[in-house]
Amino acid sequence: MGHGGNIYEIEEKYNIPQNELIDYSANINPLGVPLALKQHIIKNIDTLINYPDPDYRELKTAIAKFHQLQIEDILLGNGAAEVLHAFIRTLKPQNALILQPSFSEYERALELVGTEVMEVYLKEENEFEVDVEAVMRQAEKGVDLIILCNPNNPTGRLIPRPQMIELLDFCEKRGIFLMVDEAFMDFADEENRLTLLQDYRNYQRLFVVRAFTKFFGVPGLRLGFGVTGNKEVIQALKRGSLPWHINSFAAGFGIVLKESNGYISDTYEWLRQEKEIFLQTLQQLKSLKVFKPDGNFILIKLTTDGINTTDLKEKMLEHKILIRECKSFKGLDERFFRVAIKDGATNRYFIEALKKSLGEWE
Amino acid sequence: MGHGGNIYEIEEKYNIPQNELIDYSANINPLGVPLALKQHIIKNIDTLINYPDPDYRELKTAIAKFHQLQIEDILLGNGAAEVLHAFIRTLKPQNALILQPSFSEYERALELVGTEVMEVYLKEENEFEVDVEAVMRQAEKGVDLIILCNPNNPTGRLIPRPQMIELLDFCEKRGIFLMVDEAFMDFADEENRLTLLQDYRNYQRLFVVRAFTKFFGVPGLRLGFGVTGNKEVIQALKRGSLPWHINSFAAGFGIVLKESNGYISDTYEWLRQEKEIFLQTLQQLKSLKVFKPDGNFILIKLTTDGINTTDLKEKMLEHKILIRECKSFKGLDERFFRVAIKDGATNRYFIEALKKSLGEWE
Repeated sequence: MGHGGNIYEIEEKYNIPQNELIDYSANINPLGVPLALKQHIIKNIDTLINYPDPDYRELKTAIAKFHQLQIEDILLGNGAAEVLHAFIRTLKPQNALILQPSFSEYERALELVGTEVMEVYLKEENEFEVDVEAVMRQAEKGVDLIILCNPNNPTGRLIPRPQMIELLDFCEKRGIFLMVDEAFMDFADEENRLTLLQDYRNYQRLFVVRAFTKFFGVPGLRLGFGVTGNKEVIQALKRGSLPWHINSFAAGFGIVLKESNGYISDTYEWLRQEKEIFLQTLQQLKSLKVFKPDGNFILIKLTTDGINTTDLKEKMLEHKILIRECKSFKGLDERFFRVAIKDGATNRYFIEALKKSLGEWE
Repeated sequence: MGHGGNIYEIEEKYNIPQNELIDYSANINPLGVPLALKQHIIKNIDTLINYPDPDYRELKTAIAKFHQLQIEDILLGNGAAEVLHAFIRTLKPQNALILQPSFSEYERALELVGTEVMEVYLKEENEFEVDVEAVMRQAEKGVDLIILCNPNNPTGRLIPRPQMIELLDFCEKRGIFLMVDEAFMDFADEENRLTLLQDYRNYQRLFVVRAFTKFFGVPGLRLGFGVTGNKEVIQALKRGSLPWHINSFAAGFGIVLKESNGYISDTYEWLRQEKEIFLQTLQQLKSLKVFKPDGNFILIKLTTDGINTTDLKEKMLEHKILIRECKSFKGLDERFFRVAIKDGATNRYFIEALKKSLGEWE
């Protein structure tokens, strides 16, 4: 399917054990599994003998409190992937507009329900910033749904708030649904954390998708949610929900949210320290064009002729580092790759490995 | 939604803590969480920082070996519920035939895709045995799909192999799909363990659904699978699968299957010892009609006028025991309830509590 983070394929193909591989291809908080979650799992391991609460009251209450939402507006998901697929399957739009390059599951989900997909391409000359005017112009031709990833994966840019509000008003007026996937929003700098989670009540056509497991370092746990103030939509989504689709350990994630203050401040401390250094160091390297990231990952372009990411990936794997080639993203090619931001020591090791790999071409 | 095992609702309504409640309403192996799984989870807790293998190679290999299946014929599910919903959503039958009373998710899944549902009622005077002739007669009126639960939940009876083969041949000849949910098959007596898992290669219209989490005492983990020899169907199902829908701990369930010999033999030893005793003791009680179980749960009818299961449930909760009222099942009413079979000591406590509860009416 071509997502990042496939360390199993690497183990099989390159004989690098999973626990030795340094995975820069998945954009996960390097602080790792929160202690509160580990304690919760170990303490409650025997409760696997029970079905999870089919209504997930405790979890929904914790999420509502953490993000200041109404419980009844929340749709839980077995990962954000289930949420976005459920929304698209329920809405079943005739025509939808997506950006390219972007997370490939939107297109896949739309194709599964037979939606005609229109695409607006982000332009390298604009640093892949989202041109909201272009989106609206295209949408005026007639779409039922617009899907945005904010910040966008893999290009990393956020849509500024004024433009997002303009788009929201446009959608509201024309009866176009707007799905905004904020999977990486929590990693944005504080002044730029432009979530729509506090706006959803004011827009009947807005559906916001969120993930917990990237920010809290636990993609293996599977937990995401969606939120909308549209009663008809949320009820249809809940009618279609599978029973017990959130496993017991993910259902207990509320304990992490309640005890998250230290983890969150540590995460922002890490990002504050490492993001700028990593970015600047990358920018100093020859052969690279580095795109400014609003989240916790960086899109990079190889600018020297004769170098491509397939070769670079192989060379980096000699250092047991996995990068995310971006040629599977529409609008990108063999010159683009994406890397996560990790802790300082690992980033320095990454830079050394990258220098050596690039140096071999010089 | 009205499934068993909602110990959270009971805690809220009756103020009985989850860990004090004796849950006879969910049909789960009382041997509980296998030691191999606990060790696996604790040892691998930090691997939650990785996405699960999107192809789940290790898990599929283990399942294929355990049940002697072809890897490519297996569809994994986030619980058997996801498997059956996925199959129905993919097949999208115009007309389907189900039995009543039976597990309510079949009907719910069919209604979600707009299928017209035909029902064949199991008859109390036949001990709720499945009348395969009646199923075929009804199916001849024109259906695309027949759904069976074998042994059937909540009535507990297995379809004998000759009749099942007759039905399979009938379906194959007429081009009718047959989905058989074997969620409780592993609990059947050895001579009666009439799984179709070894037949699926010979029938292009057969889809078998299985769960691991009831037999292995871990419904909170979420893991089921489906299997079919129909290449077109399995490919369509895989195309529609969500990425990473099996969490990391469930993805590691292969370790349990590999080390399962002791757990399995202990389970059959328990069933051999306790099932017959529990059954006979229940049969001796006045006011009850007990239906012979082929699985690990028993359907019971209150036969004295003026007694109903709503009252009985309340009385049993005074002993911190939860039973499954069956009035939400079509074809059953306020006189029917279902109980799991547990370990000897707990079953004796259950019998005492039941005697006291029934005695209060005498």
